[in-house]
Parts: sequence; structure tokens; C-alpha cells
Amino acid sequence: MDYNKILEEIYCEISQIEDRGRVADYIPALGAVSPEKFGMALKLVTGEEYHMGDAFENFSIQSISKVFTLTLSLENDDSILNRRVGIEPSGNAFNSLVQLETENGIPRNPFINAGAIVITDSLLSIHKNPKNRIVDFVRQLSGNSGIIYDFEVAHSEKETGYRNMALANFIKSYGNLSNNVEDVLDTYYHQCSLSMSCMDLARAFIFLANNGKDLEGKEILSYRQTKKVNSLLMTCGTYDAVGNFAYKVGIPAKSGVGGGIVGIIPGVMTVVVWSPGLDKAGNSLLGSKALEQFTTLTGRSVF
Amino acid sequence: MDYNKILEEIYCEISQIEDRGRVADYIPALGAVSPEKFGMALKLVTGEEYHMGDAFENFSIQSISKVFTLTLSLENDDSILNRRVGIEPSGNAFNSLVQLETENGIPRNPFINAGAIVITDSLLSIHKNPKNRIVDFVRQLSGNSGIIYDFEVAHSEKETGYRNMALANFIKSYGNLSNNVEDVLDTYYHQCSLSMSCMDLARAFIFLANNGKDLEGKEILSYRQTKKVNSLLMTCGTYDAVGNFAYKVGIPAKSGVGGGIVGIIPGVMTVVVWSPGLDKAGNSLLGSKALEQFTTLTGRSVF
Amino acid sequence: MDYNKILEEIYCEISQIEDRGRVADYIPALGAVSPEKFGMALKLVTGEEYHMGDAFENFSIQSISKVFTLTLSLENDDSILNRRVGIEPSGNAFNSLVQLETENGIPRNPFINAGAIVITDSLLSIHKNPKNRIVDFVRQLSGNSGIIYDFEVAHSEKETGYRNMALANFIKSYGNLSNNVEDVLDTYYHQCSLSMSCMDLARAFIFLANNGKDLEGKEILSYRQTKKVNSLLMTCGTYDAVGNFAYKVGIPAKSGVGGGIVGIIPGVMTVVVWSPGLDKAGNSLLGSKALEQFTTLTGRSVF
Amino acid sequence: MDYNKILEEIYCEISQIEDRGRVADYIPALGAVSPEKFGMALKLVTGEEYHMGDAFENFSIQSISKVFTLTLSLENDDSILNRRVGIEPSGNAFNSLVQLETENGIPRNPFINAGAIVITDSLLSIHKNPKNRIVDFVRQLSGNSGIIYDFEVAHSEKETGYRNMALANFIKSYGNLSNNVEDVLDTYYHQCSLSMSCMDLARAFIFLANNGKDLEGKEILSYRQTKKVNSLLMTCGTYDAVGNFAYKVGIPAKSGVGGGIVGIIPGVMTVVVWSPGLDKAGNSLLGSKALEQFTTLTGRSVF
Repeated sequence: MDYNKILEEIYCEISQIEDRGRVADYIPALGAVSPEKFGMALKLVTGEEYHMGDAFENFSIQSISKVFTLTLSLENDDSILNRRVGIEPSGNAFNSLVQLETENGIPRNPFINAGAIVITDSLLSIHKNPKNRIVDFVRQLSGNSGIIYDFEVAHSEKETGYRNMALANFIKSYGNLSNNVEDVLDTYYHQCSLSMSCMDLARAFIFLANNGKDLEGKEILSYRQTKKVNSLLMTCGTYDAVGNFAYKVGIPAKSGVGGGIVGIIPGVMTVVVWSPGLDKAGNSLLGSKALEQFTTLTGRSVF
Repeated sequence: MDYNKILEEIYCEISQIEDRGRVADYIPALGAVSPEKFGMALKLVTGEEYHMGDAFENFSIQSISKVFTLTLSLENDDSILNRRVGIEPSGNAFNSLVQLETENGIPRNPFINAGAIVITDSLLSIHKNPKNRIVDFVRQLSGNSGIIYDFEVAHSEKETGYRNMALANFIKSYGNLSNNVEDVLDTYYHQCSLSMSCMDLARAFIFLANNGKDLEGKEILSYRQTKKVNSLLMTCGTYDAVGNFAYKVGIPAKSGVGGGIVGIIPGVMTVVVWSPGLDKAGNSLLGSKALEQFTTLTGRSVF
Repeated sequence: MDYNKILEEIYCEISQIEDRGRVADYIPALGAVSPEKFGMALKLVTGEEYHMGDAFENFSIQSISKVFTLTLSLENDDSILNRRVGIEPSGNAFNSLVQLETENGIPRNPFINAGAIVITDSLLSIHKNPKNRIVDFVRQLSGNSGIIYDFEVAHSEKETGYRNMALANFIKSYGNLSNNVEDVLDTYYHQCSLSMSCMDLARAFIFLANNGKDLEGKEILSYRQTKKVNSLLMTCGTYDAVGNFAYKVGIPAKSGVGGGIVGIIPGVMTVVVWSPGLDKAGNSLLGSKALEQFTTLTGRSVF
Repeated sequence: MDYNKILEEIYCEISQIEDRGRVADYIPALGAVSPEKFGMALKLVTGEEYHMGDAFENFSIQSISKVFTLTLSLENDDSILNRRVGIEPSGNAFNSLVQLETENGIPRNPFINAGAIVITDSLLSIHKNPKNRIVDFVRQLSGNSGIIYDFEVAHSEKETGYRNMALANFIKSYGNLSNNVEDVLDTYYHQCSLSMSCMDLARAFIFLANNGKDLEGKEILSYRQTKKVNSLLMTCGTYDAVGNFAYKVGIPAKSGVGGGIVGIIPGVMTVVVWSPGLDKAGNSLLGSKALEQFTTLTGRSVF
């Protein structure tokens, strides 16, 4: 398949769309990004790579980081899912507190904020310096030792993160947070602030398309764990628009409010897109369209 | 792949499991079925068929019928999804009224009862005799002209269906039901009472594994509509256990409280299983296990 | 105290208010009433009576009837409160189904629709002809043998009562309705359709201001039951505006969407007002103002 | 009326009850109080005072402090009610976050934690040293300059107050908290820790029984504000048992988890009781019974 041609076709079509969505602006650092940015990167399990547009420019990965921390947590202790975090779609907004109250502080899944906070808490219980561990892990996976936290972004999120403070304290009140709330959120805000490019992400997540192994054959997750993460991405990865996303794009994926979306085509490749403007559900507007076209042109939807 | 051997292996393992779940008994006709029943049937897009155990014995398809009525409705008018019924997982029990109240009578998806009732209502607006149309459609799809409604089951459901009466009247109060409540529910209870075998279902749903076409090439749904139905099955097809089912089985599927589960492996085959005992979420307990093993042994999970 | 002068003063002031609220129009018979109507009637426990404006004109008492049926039910069996219907304010709209689902079909109190339907159900279990019993009881209490059901209103409510059908079936699904849904609702719609005047109501409810006895000394309710009904009126009698009403008016009261409000001043009198235009909460707009002024001018708020 | 005899009768009867409820133990300082304690104090608007048992022993007033801060806030700015805090019963537990989410951070009333936190926030915006202002105000109202904060209690509440941290941050995320979360909660925990006796409270709240004036005639609240506070106590003062409390006791009242309950008989007196064991709703078990008997024996229920 001529992936260069496909990427070009998508790029061309996307360029002509006028409505580019709305760039997240709840913190200044995010709002300053140009809505004109657009990048796309592919990595195949065979090792081939393709890219288009701003594929090497860094952006704030935000919620995409939840897949990294989940992976790190599962590596250590599989049982956290079901025990401290569920695996079902929430049917509510990503930062809702309602369900937590009726379900006694057990978040529905690891990709809503509440669930991701519990996952990060588990890393604080394992690692002396969880922030170092996370960034090292991401550098290793992507093969890019230059990846760093954007401290300005992390700091801004902290400053305005009343809802997350509410979530973490609420979970703590139910006994489902082992560490200090401030420490957990500090790590959480840092993981969200990781600054990476489409190509970094395409490389870092190739293990999810490769049965859990990186391309040198090293096991990151077991086969079963990989299946679990991919299925969670399908049913819970794109905020409360998973049904819509599954229909239009049809592959496991995780989005972030920085405008990035990572898609996994199991057994075949990763496909990553970045366009900062978001739709109402918080997913990249053009990013979703680009992925929709990609799975249509390649016939690679899992459905 | 030696499907006969795989089915045998599954059958053998399933036979040794003592906990067979709990047969639905809210109506006498369902409760009378032996929990020892177990059948499995495959149909490949190449036309091959495989079966095991009670694959030719009829059972009550119950919620599996929601896929037939959705297909019939989409055939006529695509726009019903999003307009009158959503496409997102509900995060609530299949017969919950809560979400309907906050979302003004628009059910979350066509596979919870509320959504299925709206879909059935749409059929009453199109067809003079919707009950005849539905059974004819199912007969045509399965190639079995002997398929009939089980009037005793339909009658029993009506007698005890206070929750469904509540749902339908509630939807009607929001103006999202065009026809008479009693008429809609009468059709709904009849569709649920359809009595079919694993092999009937494997044949009837082969179009969902074959890009919308039956094996003679006749288009039942368009390519896009087929993708939509399959993705809806993945994100909403197994009550409020979709995350768990996606992880363990990893294919689009629809279950019914009669103990049947229909799985779709896009591009490859349908796989249908029947075992009357249910788990807490209302899915066949051994049926889920059998499908989990099937996708593991064949490597056919979409993840 | 010169009640005639007070009524005149209120009447005078009310006449000058331009915004008279919105007449309920969900059924034609209610919508046809002139918003210019205004009546007021007092009955003291000493026997004295006062009136003003359209105090002798009949209107649809609607939810005020819930106090009659509760009284009839308590007369027979005190234990229905707490066992089948709660005694706490709901914090939700009067016709909400949400709370019923989380509280397993036990309505919060007897003055929301769900609770009133359960109360009516209890009357069907006691009386052979509950509709006759209710109207007889109301005639006896008010001393007006001419009081009748408005069959047109009852019929209209039935025709459009999908929400109430949903409520009743939902309650039935939890086993908290003993009789046939249609029969219960038929009685319920009839009680709501009772056509009475301010003076009829002032006379009928004097027992609630007189420790449970009518003015001939006959006990309708015990002293304790009377206290219970009055406290329920205070905390649950005016839809989801009880806090606001308690603050402004400060006496136990029951309103109806026909525009009537019955107020009880324990130990002193009943005060009834009628003005068909409603505020957003469904209470008579000018009726509430008139009662607010009445308790201010007479210093009769319980606070 | 012989109040001494009435108090004695109540005391005698209460002494014989074996089930004294459960002392709050979520912080050690509260759990250490003996369940055998029982005190009662009356103050009439004529100046007379009566007492019984441990009426002069200090206890932690906890939520009763919400009435002091509300009074201080209303003194300054009447419009906070309706604008930043509602006046309706919540129908939910006192520390629930659910309603806040559906109602955009506007708490239902000033006596649930969320509402009290907003009220305290308003005091931080008015007073340079709100903690000093509050304790000074309470000393002035009660005429007891020895009243102090129990710093151990305040500190303990802070240590375990994850739910309140969640509430405050959640409210802040909706923009309904002007000051720093930590500062607001610090003041909030201190007000709750005020250590007072039954007699202190009976004296301090006499203005609510005296149309807003203390017994020297100084206006604390206007007549209308006093009516508002009393009606709020009636509809929202006893957690989610207001209906039950209104029925059994029938007067405006505010309870605290320290086991105190302050009752207001408008125009007549305050009646305060203390017994540390709580019922399921968080109100003093014997305290409620004592007040029930008091209003029965004196005929002073408002109903």
C-alpha cells in the first residue's frame, strides 16, 4: 500500500476544511498553539515509518499520557484493574464526579481523569521518583532521550486544577488513594505536560500494535495485557464519544486535549495525528477526520 | 484452521465447568430451559459451516432481535441514529430510566431496551404489519422459513413488562414515540420471542461479517452501515459489560437473556453460541467463556 | 382582626400586578380558564367565614386532591407512610422518575405524583368503588353535596398522561402497586379533576387547622396524624419550591396546577386562594403572593 | 407552664432508654465523648432560663455553627441566598457532590456542607480575620466571653477532611468560591470546632425566637431575615431527615454531629438539647426524642 500517497491525499483534503475546531485554552500554554498545525505519522510493525506535515513538532500529549502510566502500572501489578479501577465506559463526561459517588470511589476506567489519577497513585507506591520513572519509560519506548516535561504547562494545570483536586480528594475520601493528594496530582500534571511529536508517539506505542513487544522483541506488556489495553482504548479511549469514534474510525485510540490522537491497528501499525482544534467531546476535530479517512482509504477499521 | 477441532476443544473444556450461571426466570417459559444445553455454530464468508452440541435447537433470541430490527430500520432510514437514538454506551443498566430523564427521551443506543423500543416504533411507522415484516426478514436472512414467534413467551413478557411499559410511556412523554405504546410493545415482545437456533443466527448475520452483503451478494446494509452496526455491537452490544467483553472476547457481539450470543468477525465469519445460564450482567456465562476461548485459539480478536 | 379589610387590601394590590403567570395548558380544559380569575376564602376554627372575588367559582383542584386521598388512606392504615411512601422532600421535579430508580420504587413523599399514585392504589385495595368513596368524602368534608368530577378534565389527563403511565408502571415493576395500573390511574385522574371553589376547600380542610376534628367535633384524623399531614405540607406541599414558599408564606400549604392553594394555620384557620396563572415551579403566582401578604398582614406565619 | 417539671419528666424518660445511638467517631476528639451525657436548656423571650442535666458542659457544636455564619453573612449581604446558595432542601446526603455537578456549583441550601462552605467563603471576603470575627460574634450573642475554638478538633477535621476538600475544590471549579480553598476550609473547620454548652446556645439563638432582636432589643437580623432563617431551619436544618423531624418535633431546628440540637419556637423560646449518640441521619437520637416530647408536652409544635 502506498502510505505516502494516502497521507498526501488526507493532508490535501484536510487543508481545505475551514472549521478547524477550538483550541483548548483553559491554560495559556495550550491556547497559544496555532490551529493551523497538522501532522501525521505512521509506524508499521515491519519497522517502516511515514510522516506528513508537522509530524516532528512537539505538542502537549495530555491524556495520551494515561496510556503510558497504565502500561507502567500493569507491568508491575495486573490486578489494579477491576480492583481499584473499572474497565467499563462511563457514559459521563471525563471529569464527572457523579459516578464516583454512587460507585464508592472506584473510577469506571483508567482513561477518565479519576481513573488515571488512581493509576498514577499506584506508580507513587511503586517508584521512589515516579516522575523520573515515567519520563524515562517514555524516552525508552520512543527512542528519544530528548523528551521532557513542559514545566510551564504542568504548573498552569496545577494552578487551575480545582476539578482534579476535587476528584483526587473525593477518591481519597473513599480510601482509594494511597499517597498524598498533592504528590499524586503533581505527578499527574507532569505526565500530562509531556511534550512529544507524532513520530515520537508512533514509535512509543508500536508495542500495542505488536502484541506487546517493541520492534527489538522486548516484551513491554504480555499478549493478554496488550489485548486488554487495546480493548480499553476502543471502549473508553476517546472521552464520551467512543461510540461515534468507533463507528467513524473503528480502531483503538487515545486522544488528548492537546490535539493529538494515537491510533492502534493491531498487528499492523500505529497511526498518530495532531491538529490542535477540538470538537465538542474534546477530541481533535481534524485529527478524527484524518483517522476516519485513513481507515477508510486503507480498509483498516477493525469492523 | 481446523474449526472442528477447535469447537471440540472448547466443548470439552466447557463441559467440565460446574458453575453454569443462572437461567433467566422472570418469565416461566425462559426458566424452563435446561442449563445443560450448549450449542455453537460458525459460518464463514466462504460459505463453510461448523457446529457443535445443540447448535440446531431453538431458543428464545430475546435482545439479539434488536440487531434485526435495527437493520430493518437502517435499511429504510439511516438518520434515525443520532436523531432519535444515540450511539454511545450508556454506562447504566439496560433497563434504566435515569438517563432518559436527563437526556429528554433520547435513548443512548439502540441496544438498551429504550433504544430498541424507539427502533421498533420506527418500523411501525413504515410497515403495515411490522410483525410479519420482521419474521419474514429473519426467515429470508437465515434461509429458514420455519422460524416463528413463540407466542407464549411474547404473552408472558407482556404480562410482566411493567418496566418496559414505563420506558415506552416515558419516551412517549418526550415525544420520541410516534405510535401507540401498546402496539409498539406488542411488536417488541414478539421480536424478542423469536425462536431460533445457533445455526439460524450464524447464517442470518453473515452479512455483518461480509461488508453488508449476504453470500449471494445481495446488499442488506451498505458498507458504511455495516461498519456502524459492528462498532455499535462492540461498544454497546453486551449490556453494561462491554468493556469486560471487549477485553476478554474482543469482537463485536450481541447477547440475549435467552443465553445466546452472536459474534461477528468482520471479513471472516459469524460465531454463535448458546448456553442458558447467565452471569450478573445478563450475558451467557459459558457462552462468554466459549467465545473468549474461540478468539484466543483462533487469534481472531480484533485487538 | 378585620379579615374583610385584609382581604380587600390584598385584592386591591393583586389587581395591579401585570404579570399573572402562565395558565397550565397541557390539557385544553385547564388552558381555557381566564387568567383574570382571583378568589380567596377563609374559615376560622371559630366557624367564621370570609371571602373575596371569585371565592365561590369552581376550578380544577388537581394536586390539592392528594391531601384528600392521603387523609382517606391514613384513616384506614397509618403505616403506609414510611413503608410504601416516604416523608422527605424529594429535591426533584414532581414527576421525576430518577429517584424512584435509586430508591427501588418507594416514592419520597405522598405529594409528588409517584407518591400520590401509591396512596390512590391503597384506596383501591380498601374501597370497592374508590371514586365514589373519594367524592363522598370530599362532599362530606366541605358540606357541599354538589361537588362532582369533571369527566372532561379526567379524560384529557388520561389521554396525555404518558409520564404518569410511566411512573405507575415503574412503581408496579418494583412491586409497590397492588392494583391494575389502568384502574389506579383512572381513579387518580378523577380525583385530580374534582371541581371545587375556594370556599369549598376552606371548609373541607378546616379539620387540619382544628387538630384533626371538623367543627362539629367529629375526628377526621387523630391529633398526631394531623401534625404529620401539616408537617408534610410544609416540607413537601409546594412542589420543588418548598424552601422558597416556607420562607415567603411560612405556613403548611398544598398547591395545584389549576391555580389553587390551600393554606393551613394550625389552631386558627384555613386560607384558600385561587388564581390560574402559575410560576415556574407550578404554584399559582398571584396565589403565592396573596398568601405571602396574608401571613405578613396577619402575622400568622409559623416562623 | 412548669418548665422545670417538663424537663424533669423528659430527663426521667430519656434516662431509661437503652439505645443511645452511635457517637460520631470520624475524628478521635469527638469519639472520646461519653454517650451518657445529656443536657437541656431553655431560654424564653421573657428572659427566663431553665436547664437540666449537663446543660453547662461544653461540646463541639459542629454544624450548628452554620447558623452563626449564615447570620453573619446575611447581616452584610442579603443577596447571597438565591445568588450563590439556594434555599431548597437537597434530597441528598449532607456531603453529596452529585447535585453540585448538575446545578453548576450552586449548593442547594446553606446547611449542607457545600452551602456552608460558600457562606464561610463570603465571610472571608468581608472580614480581615474571619475566625476572630466569628468567635467574637458568638461570644457577644451568648454573653459568654470564654467561648473558644477547640484547635484539636479543628486540626483533626482538617486531617481527615478529604470530602470537604473535594466539595470546596469542586465549587471553586465552578467559580463559586472567591477565596483560597485552604483558607476557607481552615475557617470552616474552626467554626465547626466551637465548644459551647446548651445554655450558651439557648442564649445565643434567642434572637431567632424574638423576631431578630436580642433581649436588649438590639437587632441581629431584620424581621424578614429571621423568618427566612427559621424557615430554612425547618426545611433544611436536620440533614436529610427534615420531613421526619418536622413531623415528630415540628419546630425549626439545627443539629450537629457533636450531638447538639438547637430548636426555635418563634415568639416564645429557644430549646437546646445535647446527647452525643446519633441516629442514622446524623441527628442526636435522644436529642430528637427529647425535643419531640418537649413539643408534645408543651403543645409548642408549629403544626
